[in-house]
Amino acid sequence: MFASLFTKRQPKVGARPGTLVIPKEAEKPKIRRISYSPEEVIDEEITDVAHLSEAFKEGQISWVDIHGFGDRQTIQQIGDLFELHPLLLEDVVNVPQRPKTEAYGDQILILVRMVQVYESGEIDMEQVSVILGKNWVLTFQEKSGDILDPVRKRIRNKTSRIRNSQSDFLAYAIVDTIIDAYYPALELLGNQLEEFEDEVIMDPTPELLRKLHRMKNRLVNLRRSIWPQREAINRLVRGDYPSISENVRIYLRDTYDHCVQTSEVAEMYREMVTGLMNTYLSSIANRTNEVMKVLTIMASIFIPLTFLAGIYGMNFDHMPELHMEWAYPMVWILMLLTAGGMLYYFWRKGWISLDASSVENEE
Amino acid sequence: MFASLFTKRQPKVGARPGTLVIPKEAEKPKIRRISYSPEEVIDEEITDVAHLSEAFKEGQISWVDIHGFGDRQTIQQIGDLFELHPLLLEDVVNVPQRPKTEAYGDQILILVRMVQVYESGEIDMEQVSVILGKNWVLTFQEKSGDILDPVRKRIRNKTSRIRNSQSDFLAYAIVDTIIDAYYPALELLGNQLEEFEDEVIMDPTPELLRKLHRMKNRLVNLRRSIWPQREAINRLVRGDYPSISENVRIYLRDTYDHCVQTSEVAEMYREMVTGLMNTYLSSIANRTNEVMKVLTIMASIFIPLTFLAGIYGMNFDHMPELHMEWAYPMVWILMLLTAGGMLYYFWRKGWISLDASSVENEE
Amino acid sequence: MFASLFTKRQPKVGARPGTLVIPKEAEKPKIRRISYSPEEVIDEEITDVAHLSEAFKEGQISWVDIHGFGDRQTIQQIGDLFELHPLLLEDVVNVPQRPKTEAYGDQILILVRMVQVYESGEIDMEQVSVILGKNWVLTFQEKSGDILDPVRKRIRNKTSRIRNSQSDFLAYAIVDTIIDAYYPALELLGNQLEEFEDEVIMDPTPELLRKLHRMKNRLVNLRRSIWPQREAINRLVRGDYPSISENVRIYLRDTYDHCVQTSEVAEMYREMVTGLMNTYLSSIANRTNEVMKVLTIMASIFIPLTFLAGIYGMNFDHMPELHMEWAYPMVWILMLLTAGGMLYYFWRKGWISLDASSVENEE
Amino acid sequence: MFASLFTKRQPKVGARPGTLVIPKEAEKPKIRRISYSPEEVIDEEITDVAHLSEAFKEGQISWVDIHGFGDRQTIQQIGDLFELHPLLLEDVVNVPQRPKTEAYGDQILILVRMVQVYESGEIDMEQVSVILGKNWVLTFQEKSGDILDPVRKRIRNKTSRIRNSQSDFLAYAIVDTIIDAYYPALELLGNQLEEFEDEVIMDPTPELLRKLHRMKNRLVNLRRSIWPQREAINRLVRGDYPSISENVRIYLRDTYDHCVQTSEVAEMYREMVTGLMNTYLSSIANRTNEVMKVLTIMASIFIPLTFLAGIYGMNFDHMPELHMEWAYPMVWILMLLTAGGMLYYFWRKGWISLDASSVENEE
Amino acid sequence: MFASLFTKRQPKVGARPGTLVIPKEAEKPKIRRISYSPEEVIDEEITDVAHLSEAFKEGQISWVDIHGFGDRQTIQQIGDLFELHPLLLEDVVNVPQRPKTEAYGDQILILVRMVQVYESGEIDMEQVSVILGKNWVLTFQEKSGDILDPVRKRIRNKTSRIRNSQSDFLAYAIVDTIIDAYYPALELLGNQLEEFEDEVIMDPTPELLRKLHRMKNRLVNLRRSIWPQREAINRLVRGDYPSISENVRIYLRDTYDHCVQTSEVAEMYREMVTGLMNTYLSSIANRTNEVMKVLTIMASIFIPLTFLAGIYGMNFDHMPELHMEWAYPMVWILMLLTAGGMLYYFWRKGWISLDASSVENEE
Ligand SMILES: [Mg+2]
Ligand SMILES: [Mg+2]
Ligand SMILES: [Mg+2]
Ligand SMILES: [Mg+2]
Ligand SMILES: [Mg+2]
Ligand SMILES: [Mg+2]
Ligand SMILES: [Mg+2]
Ligand SMILES: [Mg+2]
Ligand SMILES: [Mg+2]
Ligand SMILES: [Mg+2]
Ligand SMILES: [Mg+2]
Ligand SMILES: [Mg+2]
Ligand SMILES: [Mg+2]
Ligand SMILES: [Mg+2]
Ligand SMILES: [Mg+2]
Ligand SMILES: [Mg+2]
Ligand SMILES: [Mg+2]
Ligand SMILES: [Mg+2]
Ligand SMILES: [Mg+2]
Ligand SMILES: [Mg+2]
Ligand SMILES: [Mg+2]
Ligand SMILES: [Mg+2]
Ligand SMILES: [Mg+2]
Ligand SMILES: [Mg+2]
Ligand SMILES: [Mg+2]
Ligand SMILES: [Mg+2]
Ligand SMILES: [Mg+2]
Ligand SMILES: [Mg+2]
Ligand SMILES: [Mg+2]
Ligand SMILES: [Mg+2]
Ligand SMILES: [Mg+2]
Repeated sequence: MFASLFTKRQPKVGARPGTLVIPKEAEKPKIRRISYSPEEVIDEEITDVAHLSEAFKEGQISWVDIHGFGDRQTIQQIGDLFELHPLLLEDVVNVPQRPKTEAYGDQILILVRMVQVYESGEIDMEQVSVILGKNWVLTFQEKSGDILDPVRKRIRNKTSRIRNSQSDFLAYAIVDTIIDAYYPALELLGNQLEEFEDEVIMDPTPELLRKLHRMKNRLVNLRRSIWPQREAINRLVRGDYPSISENVRIYLRDTYDHCVQTSEVAEMYREMVTGLMNTYLSSIANRTNEVMKVLTIMASIFIPLTFLAGIYGMNFDHMPELHMEWAYPMVWILMLLTAGGMLYYFWRKGWISLDASSVENEE
Repeated sequence: MFASLFTKRQPKVGARPGTLVIPKEAEKPKIRRISYSPEEVIDEEITDVAHLSEAFKEGQISWVDIHGFGDRQTIQQIGDLFELHPLLLEDVVNVPQRPKTEAYGDQILILVRMVQVYESGEIDMEQVSVILGKNWVLTFQEKSGDILDPVRKRIRNKTSRIRNSQSDFLAYAIVDTIIDAYYPALELLGNQLEEFEDEVIMDPTPELLRKLHRMKNRLVNLRRSIWPQREAINRLVRGDYPSISENVRIYLRDTYDHCVQTSEVAEMYREMVTGLMNTYLSSIANRTNEVMKVLTIMASIFIPLTFLAGIYGMNFDHMPELHMEWAYPMVWILMLLTAGGMLYYFWRKGWISLDASSVENEE
Repeated sequence: MFASLFTKRQPKVGARPGTLVIPKEAEKPKIRRISYSPEEVIDEEITDVAHLSEAFKEGQISWVDIHGFGDRQTIQQIGDLFELHPLLLEDVVNVPQRPKTEAYGDQILILVRMVQVYESGEIDMEQVSVILGKNWVLTFQEKSGDILDPVRKRIRNKTSRIRNSQSDFLAYAIVDTIIDAYYPALELLGNQLEEFEDEVIMDPTPELLRKLHRMKNRLVNLRRSIWPQREAINRLVRGDYPSISENVRIYLRDTYDHCVQTSEVAEMYREMVTGLMNTYLSSIANRTNEVMKVLTIMASIFIPLTFLAGIYGMNFDHMPELHMEWAYPMVWILMLLTAGGMLYYFWRKGWISLDASSVENEE
Repeated sequence: MFASLFTKRQPKVGARPGTLVIPKEAEKPKIRRISYSPEEVIDEEITDVAHLSEAFKEGQISWVDIHGFGDRQTIQQIGDLFELHPLLLEDVVNVPQRPKTEAYGDQILILVRMVQVYESGEIDMEQVSVILGKNWVLTFQEKSGDILDPVRKRIRNKTSRIRNSQSDFLAYAIVDTIIDAYYPALELLGNQLEEFEDEVIMDPTPELLRKLHRMKNRLVNLRRSIWPQREAINRLVRGDYPSISENVRIYLRDTYDHCVQTSEVAEMYREMVTGLMNTYLSSIANRTNEVMKVLTIMASIFIPLTFLAGIYGMNFDHMPELHMEWAYPMVWILMLLTAGGMLYYFWRKGWISLDASSVENEE
Repeated sequence: MFASLFTKRQPKVGARPGTLVIPKEAEKPKIRRISYSPEEVIDEEITDVAHLSEAFKEGQISWVDIHGFGDRQTIQQIGDLFELHPLLLEDVVNVPQRPKTEAYGDQILILVRMVQVYESGEIDMEQVSVILGKNWVLTFQEKSGDILDPVRKRIRNKTSRIRNSQSDFLAYAIVDTIIDAYYPALELLGNQLEEFEDEVIMDPTPELLRKLHRMKNRLVNLRRSIWPQREAINRLVRGDYPSISENVRIYLRDTYDHCVQTSEVAEMYREMVTGLMNTYLSSIANRTNEVMKVLTIMASIFIPLTFLAGIYGMNFDHMPELHMEWAYPMVWILMLLTAGGMLYYFWRKGWISLDASSVENEE
């Protein structure tokens, strides 16, 4: 899992800056433009990039949403039309990059990572690049399908705040929705963790160790998304970028708050997995101790007795005891005393408890 | 336990900012207004939110205390009356949030987490939201019942400082009381910890490991409340908010001091639990070593002797020793020498000590 | 030990700020005033607080030294006379507080923790509160008896720098003496640690583990005093307080240096105890390995031999070997070869070394 | 591996600053000058240092590339010609130094470490010193051969940005290429790590422990290159050096981003190796537990039975059981009951599972 | 070792600031004055401190070098002559102090720690106090003998930069030489560490554990010298002290660079020792696992066989098998099948490998 997240699609060493790396199997771009003003909403699929110049019309906000990078020319045309810096375009296309915010002139690039939780329990991540311009917002994703439909719906609602605000509020709404989605993902992991907590003391199997290990990798990975995101959003809140209004920054402060919360929970979960791994070792040591006690008690009791039996199994001609009448019962008595002495010794050491509950506790 | 503290009541992904999440089983709001001036105190239950406009009367300070969020309309009316920002109201209702202080215009939102220690040893946490306005203070809690009665009593005392100060001092008194309550909670945990310290070396059972684990989770959780609270109160002390007077900030410095103390103690306890968990492992290893020594001594002494007995239990026709008169006592002497040699070897290695105290030490 | 240091004598939750908590068994206050100028020294026990107003006389420095808080009225009178802030008085009386420095108007409160090493090896801690006023210094301690006699002696020495300086130099001299006393305490712990270092590899008993554990708690505790003290003194050095002169700050820089040194040594010791605890585990694992080797060698050699002896102890009618003349010596030869083969195998594996020194190394 | 990276070629203790340490076996210097303007490119091997003064010609940018330090006089002549500070020259020649950027007057020294991944999986490092002057760039390497050919090729391309920019862009292009090369190196290590992840639970051999240990050293080493590089590049981005233009700093920001990414991945890998080492210990403990269970089950079942058999192998004259007709089958029944009882006990404790899959899981 | 470095020669608790602690066995002071100008060098032993006033002569730089503190009066006279602050003199004489730089008026005190590596592999440390005055430099050491001869030699060289610079360059040259000497010390430790790396997996004895422990203490100690030194030199570089010229600060930047390098290497070594200690534990666990496997295999194979032999060693009158002709060979076949079954089971579990190399791997 982590390998795929690391291997950023990287140009050849020494390639010209701005080189776009587009794999053969990449999806063809699907472009959708949603333009809105307080009065009207236009929502259309775009097939010819030239038509996108509509997005610059005064008096309305346009959200241009691109899914799929599988046509270099189209991507380049969009870059030219919106006057995107080649380094910006490189970060948008050569996914995944580290989440960040960067200003290029008066454009702001916001790179975030969108998580999607599937019913199977799998967590999927995809980079979403949000570019905030004067009266437009561009979003880029590698694969079609996202979690932004609630935002699109809010745009269609005439009374919504989004409809009556500038493009910075639209960018906020998109980023906020993406951050919100970390909550269900963390909840899923938290539930799994809670299951492991009991198992690690009750039933520490190698399979559990493997699950803990996988969980740790997942959390390390999640942290790699969350932490830089937190810093990135903080820069938006702090007012480093003049094109984000004071009012929208109050909303972004709320988003930042969510980043902090999720980063702390992820950190806490990571610590807990590490703790569980240490507890696992203690649990195993405990069990080995239990096993050893049983062996030691059994062996310590029966080995001396077997020795005694061996003595009187010897075939010497001259063994007076063999011919005494009470010898056999005396040997039994000696054996019972020996066994009783050992049992008393082990009970004193606390290795034997008298109540039957000890077996129960074990399970 | 930790799961419940994490699962903040979160709106659906992509919901409009300011969405209030109120579960069906939520308590109906109970509203209480305490208005006071140096001369008089009015303390009344409010059933109609409209009556709350009394709270704005010049020349007196009003504390409006709301317990229970189970009526969306009432909450919204209060929000409208006091002109609360939708994001502020969201944080107040969608509990628990991370402790923090935030300014909305000249209102200050102070989110803290109130701990209550029950006689059973259980520790309960609840978010208290304190909003400081010009001449009023609003407090919100999800469930009725709190630890603030001493403050209410001090208000009724005509000579108390609280009665003769502004609303910022009332907000301080509320927050200070909530922070104070961390001391008995930490004391309880400290006492439990002290018990574990002996047990971990004397009697390291899986049950103790489970207790240590639970304790660690509790402390991790506590820390998650205390640390952001510390930062939140520090911002009040530093003078980021002009509506808090210089004089009240001296009092808040005292509260901050308590935050620092409790955070350090919680941190120290957490380190100690981790240390105890490592000591637990060492203790178990020690015990396994003890068990193994007993087994090895028993087996090493009797196995060679049993072998000797086995030799002379063989049924070969031609075994001259069997027919010698002194063979049987000689074999006994040989066995005693062997056993003595083994015992001497183990004593040299320090695995056997001559004093009887070793059993005592064990227990 | 740590519990007592934590349980700061805390007022009831929600108590009025400035509430003094004085236990019934508290010592009655003993007050001593040392007033000095370059010309003369007055050193007297004070029984009536009203007489303390002498301390404000121009042209001389007064050190008012209070031991014991067991009379609320006296403490309050002193507070009134010196115009101490109620929060200051609270921190002075409700010991122990976290070491710190705080300004109240032009008074400076310096809270430090005094260590005393007794011959038994016990280390004791007590809060000393130093309040620096215009031409006076107040010190408060809970129990009579301190380590400040050298300072009192230096005051009586007409040529001493202390005699010819302002009250800030007196406060420095008191604090410096208290910090100095950490050196012998750390030296004591360092000597104990050095003893543990050998023991942990030579003789890792559960008793040693308990000692290491106790040592760690002691160091954690010490650190809790030293670290905030370091920060507190640093604030005096940095010049946050105008009533401390440039010249005295050079002297305080020396005290700060000592704080840094002691904090680093305490930190180093704590790391070393943690390291010793890990080494302890390795030592035990080592020993278990040694024990297991002995068991395995003994069992692996004799179990097959005993099996062989068992074979020829069987009572079948038809066992041709039993009747052969050379069978018995052949069996002995077979047994010796088996034993020799096992020994060679264990020697190849390095589990048996030929020199006798291995026993020595062990001890 | 790490030793060689540490042992920086260090002058004798107390040597004059600026002492160059050139080992006997050092390569003779090879000098290559690439001078270019938008119109033309000159690319030539230089054999006489005096010819290098061409590099100062107005209107063109010169890249002087030196491989090999094996001629003190040549190095010194270059130093004199370009007016390099003796301390700068020392850092360039006495490789390896810590990556850094330093200004000497208006010259900037950029020390970076170039990684080269060979097909065998070996990772090699070499210091590259980049000195940025007014209209020239000097690069120094100890051994001939580098990864900078793509930059040389881009210079020959008339339309490339590099051809139409100043010397700061050339320096950027060189540094950027060197940083890019960390990606394939990290990818290689990541793939190895992924292999170890399965092995550590499935097949934890001492050989694997050795591999993990070696991997950790490699990552520690890599980090020692990456972290200071990150800081060094950050200083270029921040604008500490006026000779780097605003525009080039946007490109350097991209390089810095790559430094951050690689440093985070290296850090993550290091944590993962540490985690794997801990998991290794748990895996071994697990296996020992499995081994002990088998031993204990076998011994606990058969030792009592053998004892019983021993009893009736004794040769006493008076043992009534021996002569009863049903005694032998009764003993068998007793033995089977004993064995069954033990098996039931072990099954209750969960040490025996009934499905055959447990063996499979193991492998 | 560490104890001696910690126990700074500390005055009695509460002693007057500036108290010099001189042990009885202290060396008598040896004083050497080297005064130089570009034209001439005067190098003489000083026996009468009064003659030292020559050191203030205009137009020349004087280095006054004192070895040994065993004469309080001499030290005090030097202090008076050079107008050294009593706190400065205290830090110079009561060695060892924490490395630091401090300004006293326009004098700068630079405390560093000189390491000397002896051929035996021992590393020795000594405090060197460098005091930089207007046109003189004072150095103090407790014991005669140092590593500064190369500096003295460079002074005698008429063309050296030192001869043609101010006193700040002399101070730099001394400090730089002392820092340089950390390289051979670290190289020595690095070589030892490399040896431990193999041993810890191949041959993890208690003796090795002791060596690792000692190595860790040495590195902790070294770090305690290096880290504050790094900070101290950084303050000189940053320009906190106006009496150090811009030009000399460029040279000090080089020295600072060396401090950073040595501190990072020391840190890396410390991490590696900790890692080796953890690896040691894993190695031991591994070996115990190997030992247990051998025991379990031997016991599991032979214990059931011995039981079988025991059965037919019983002396019941009615045991039909004993009288069957094929019973004895059938028992052998049964035994071989049992043993084969066990061997197959262990081979399936991977506890037995068929190639002989497993013994080799072990060693
Ligand atoms: Mg851990
Ligand atoms: Mg860990
Ligand atoms: Mg842990
Ligand atoms: Mg751990
Ligand atoms: Mg651990
Ligand atoms: Mg650990
Ligand atoms: Mg730990
Ligand atoms: Mg620990
Ligand atoms: Mg630990
Ligand atoms: Mg741990
Ligand atoms: Mg640990
Ligand atoms: Mg540890
Ligand atoms: Mg540890
Ligand atoms: Mg540790
Ligand atoms: Mg450790
Ligand atoms: Mg550990
Ligand atoms: Mg550890
Ligand atoms: Mg480790
Ligand atoms: Mg660890
Ligand atoms: Mg670790
Ligand atoms: Mg770890
Ligand atoms: Mg771990
Ligand atoms: Mg660990
Ligand atoms: Mg560990
Ligand atoms: Mg460790
Ligand atoms: Mg460690
Ligand atoms: Mg560790
Ligand atoms: Mg470690
Ligand atoms: Mg570790
Ligand atoms: Mg570890
Ligand atoms: Mg461990």
